[in-house]
Amino acid sequence: MKPSLKQYIFEIIEGSNKDNWVGQVFDSFILVLIVLNLVTFSLETVHSVWIEYKEVLTAFDIISVFVFTFEYSLRVWSCTVNPKFRHPVWGRLRFIFTPLLLIDLSAILPFYLPLFFPDIRFARSIRLFRFFRLLKLTRYSDSLKIIFTVFLIKKEELIITFFVWFLLLFSGSSLMYFAEHEAQAKAFPDIPTAMWWGVVTLTTVGYGDIYPITPMGRILAGILAVLGVGILALPTGIIASGFYDELQGKRKKKRHKHAIICPHCGNLIDEHPSDKSHH
Amino acid sequence: MKPSLKQYIFEIIEGSNKDNWVGQVFDSFILVLIVLNLVTFSLETVHSVWIEYKEVLTAFDIISVFVFTFEYSLRVWSCTVNPKFRHPVWGRLRFIFTPLLLIDLSAILPFYLPLFFPDIRFARSIRLFRFFRLLKLTRYSDSLKIIFTVFLIKKEELIITFFVWFLLLFSGSSLMYFAEHEAQAKAFPDIPTAMWWGVVTLTTVGYGDIYPITPMGRILAGILAVLGVGILALPTGIIASGFYDELQGKRKKKRHKHAIICPHCGNLIDEHPSDKSHH
Amino acid sequence: MKPSLKQYIFEIIEGSNKDNWVGQVFDSFILVLIVLNLVTFSLETVHSVWIEYKEVLTAFDIISVFVFTFEYSLRVWSCTVNPKFRHPVWGRLRFIFTPLLLIDLSAILPFYLPLFFPDIRFARSIRLFRFFRLLKLTRYSDSLKIIFTVFLIKKEELIITFFVWFLLLFSGSSLMYFAEHEAQAKAFPDIPTAMWWGVVTLTTVGYGDIYPITPMGRILAGILAVLGVGILALPTGIIASGFYDELQGKRKKKRHKHAIICPHCGNLIDEHPSDKSHH
Amino acid sequence: MKPSLKQYIFEIIEGSNKDNWVGQVFDSFILVLIVLNLVTFSLETVHSVWIEYKEVLTAFDIISVFVFTFEYSLRVWSCTVNPKFRHPVWGRLRFIFTPLLLIDLSAILPFYLPLFFPDIRFARSIRLFRFFRLLKLTRYSDSLKIIFTVFLIKKEELIITFFVWFLLLFSGSSLMYFAEHEAQAKAFPDIPTAMWWGVVTLTTVGYGDIYPITPMGRILAGILAVLGVGILALPTGIIASGFYDELQGKRKKKRHKHAIICPHCGNLIDEHPSDKSHH
Repeated sequence: MKPSLKQYIFEIIEGSNKDNWVGQVFDSFILVLIVLNLVTFSLETVHSVWIEYKEVLTAFDIISVFVFTFEYSLRVWSCTVNPKFRHPVWGRLRFIFTPLLLIDLSAILPFYLPLFFPDIRFARSIRLFRFFRLLKLTRYSDSLKIIFTVFLIKKEELIITFFVWFLLLFSGSSLMYFAEHEAQAKAFPDIPTAMWWGVVTLTTVGYGDIYPITPMGRILAGILAVLGVGILALPTGIIASGFYDELQGKRKKKRHKHAIICPHCGNLIDEHPSDKSHH
Repeated sequence: MKPSLKQYIFEIIEGSNKDNWVGQVFDSFILVLIVLNLVTFSLETVHSVWIEYKEVLTAFDIISVFVFTFEYSLRVWSCTVNPKFRHPVWGRLRFIFTPLLLIDLSAILPFYLPLFFPDIRFARSIRLFRFFRLLKLTRYSDSLKIIFTVFLIKKEELIITFFVWFLLLFSGSSLMYFAEHEAQAKAFPDIPTAMWWGVVTLTTVGYGDIYPITPMGRILAGILAVLGVGILALPTGIIASGFYDELQGKRKKKRHKHAIICPHCGNLIDEHPSDKSHH
Repeated sequence: MKPSLKQYIFEIIEGSNKDNWVGQVFDSFILVLIVLNLVTFSLETVHSVWIEYKEVLTAFDIISVFVFTFEYSLRVWSCTVNPKFRHPVWGRLRFIFTPLLLIDLSAILPFYLPLFFPDIRFARSIRLFRFFRLLKLTRYSDSLKIIFTVFLIKKEELIITFFVWFLLLFSGSSLMYFAEHEAQAKAFPDIPTAMWWGVVTLTTVGYGDIYPITPMGRILAGILAVLGVGILALPTGIIASGFYDELQGKRKKKRHKHAIICPHCGNLIDEHPSDKSHH
Repeated sequence: MKPSLKQYIFEIIEGSNKDNWVGQVFDSFILVLIVLNLVTFSLETVHSVWIEYKEVLTAFDIISVFVFTFEYSLRVWSCTVNPKFRHPVWGRLRFIFTPLLLIDLSAILPFYLPLFFPDIRFARSIRLFRFFRLLKLTRYSDSLKIIFTVFLIKKEELIITFFVWFLLLFSGSSLMYFAEHEAQAKAFPDIPTAMWWGVVTLTTVGYGDIYPITPMGRILAGILAVLGVGILALPTGIIASGFYDELQGKRKKKRHKHAIICPHCGNLIDEHPSDKSHH
């Protein structure tokens, strides 16, 4: 069965088939454009660059938005190929409110609606969310799934670790405030500031803008730093054991999956049961 | 058998049954109140906030203590439902001296006994210990048990690691004192101060308040920092292998446990042998 | 069959046979000479050392280059012993363009071609690449293979981790720029500078040259630092599980390999099928 | 068979039997004395403490040395109980030259030989080595053995990791010198100083005494910091997989060991084959 133009466009834009080289080129082009947008977005804040290349940067911004708008329109137009969004009106509306499409919209909306968002710089920062579109790239999706699965499996342990860490942060910072407030009222004026010190110390960043100077404060800070490093070992251990588990589970699953891969298109059949008609 | 009011209250306050939504709401309410107390406790130390919201913060403090006192009274009154503390006088006395109840008491005592603790701020910091009450929350208790079990199983390895770390800290700081004392007597005036430098370096915090400037001191500091980073790999490795062990043991145990879960209430039967009569 | 002089030289220079003590001495000598070159290369930049030991350092440099040139010539002359580079002209040419030989050439070329590279210091820095020659050393090659294999197996997970990390870096630094630019325009003048702060924070280096001072910036920096530390746990977990996998695979392979080690020379027979004729 | 006084003393000082409570007390007493010596050693360098407590500290030092001398004499006298050092002269001489006894000697020698070591402070620092005596304590020896075994098993991987790390340090620091020397000749005057910056960065300590300011230097430093953090994941992964291996091996071994534990004294019989006569 020969595909229609809409089906062809849909395959290029949304398809995950690695044999479709046009789709690969399209994905790469959008990816490069996003990265270039991030670079220009950063460079626009550099005063000397903005002065000199104002026109180039603005032109590139306008072109980018037009490309992204065209891509967005193509997606909305062709989405009815997907059986899940078959209806020309309600299907498209439901498609528009999927997270990925909302991200796409947020990348172009700030350009068209300067009335709604008068602070144009902040509005532009929303385009960063377009970055998440990368996650869609097929070749990475398997690995990303593993990482998310590990986090999901180990959710409870990670939350309780963060909870213990926060307990340490709060009690440590409060004690630090009492130990150091007298000696250096400027560095430790209140507990929230002491908690800033606590975060910087327990993550071992250690800027050095605030640090204890009294013997009691230093002993306390030393104990906190050691405990902080010890607690940092917890998520690593949790995630390492999670990766090992996930890997073993995935291996078994994969062996099972190989049996139900479609020999015609290379896709997994039970993942797209509605596509069964295509061969 | 219809439960009495005391049994009903006991189930709400001390019960770990996830189907009891009143108990869940009660736990959440106390949890939110504790967190709010921590926030106000921190904000009270910020001078500008204290000046402006003195009355609100004080009122919130009084209300919180009354709520905590009421909760404490309910716990002591209803504890006789638990067969372990059945006796109205001795049971309650034994209950009062359990760690969790002592923590609860320490949260409200500083308010009622300003004569015993005239320094009201320090007294209030005891209320932080109420934070530990969170650990009781049923849904986290399993994960917390795993973390504690891992630490217990690996206790010896972790102690010996800390011991080796301390050995490195002490000898390194002493050598550093001899290397740098001549060049910068202010930064390295004595070995205890050099040990402060050592803790900040070996935990990789690195504030930058004290650092070597002589070639010999820098080589020594470089070696120490590398060794410190190497030793930090030890607890991570220990804990990671501990998590993996614990996980495998737990999985086997769980499979066994499923067979003896009560189909009526969802509790594990062999964990509450005295509750066997309830179905 | 008695080996010719060329074969004998080839065994010494390129051979990985641990019983060949002349080859071991040769490897050690070249290794020590490389390390000494690195030391003198560093010391030449110290002004006081350069003033005093100019002649010694220059003489050592010339001698080193001559030794390295002699070694290079021997390698090119003897390479025809290897069946892969048997042809006296085309084999040698192909040998010269192997990566290791190009590294060797880059170590001596800067000395002979000062016309091509007038900035003699930068040219000398190319000699650093000779350092990689160490990787050839037989006794380390097994372990290095494991490390590279682990990185290769886990390539996708590591790339996606780096990608998530970069996403966090870019979005965090951009938000930080908006939070801190007003308060301290010098520390956060533009997003590229904010990204420098982001790299220093997310790797927990924390120099302290740039740090937030506004409450919003500090809360943001705290969240970023915690997330950064959390993401650092990912590669560790990935690599730890990779090492465990690789180890188990290697163990099985090794058991198999032992069966096909040549009892006469100690080499693995199926690795050098063309050498089968030697016993 | 009733033990003689010498055997009794030997059991107390050198014995690892946990039922011998006199030996336990003796070990604890020596341990506490060592820790107190470390504390006084540190405090003596604090000028104000030294001025005020000179007599107390000196007296404590003299008493400590006498106790350590008495302990050393007892060890040398009673060592002949051990079949390995049975000969009253040659056995004792061989015993004196065992590492542990040399450490013991080094703790007291600096006191008796101020002529050999006129710089009394440095001499005293040798007493630190007495600290290693702690490692002898029976209850920790098993865990320490595991840690050492893990390092031994993974020796090659750890060395090659350090080698890769050093390669990165050297090349990164050299490139950094070329990138930053022009902009800040004081911070990066030569490559050795740049390497100090490199060590501080690659271990993520980040004092902030030296940091790049040029865009090229910052990009280079960012890449180096990320690579440094990535390499830090390697030893953790290596050690974690090593711990897991060692644990499994140990478990199998232990099961075997249980069969040959002496039912009379609790010691492992095949560890002290010469003690077989004691039951």
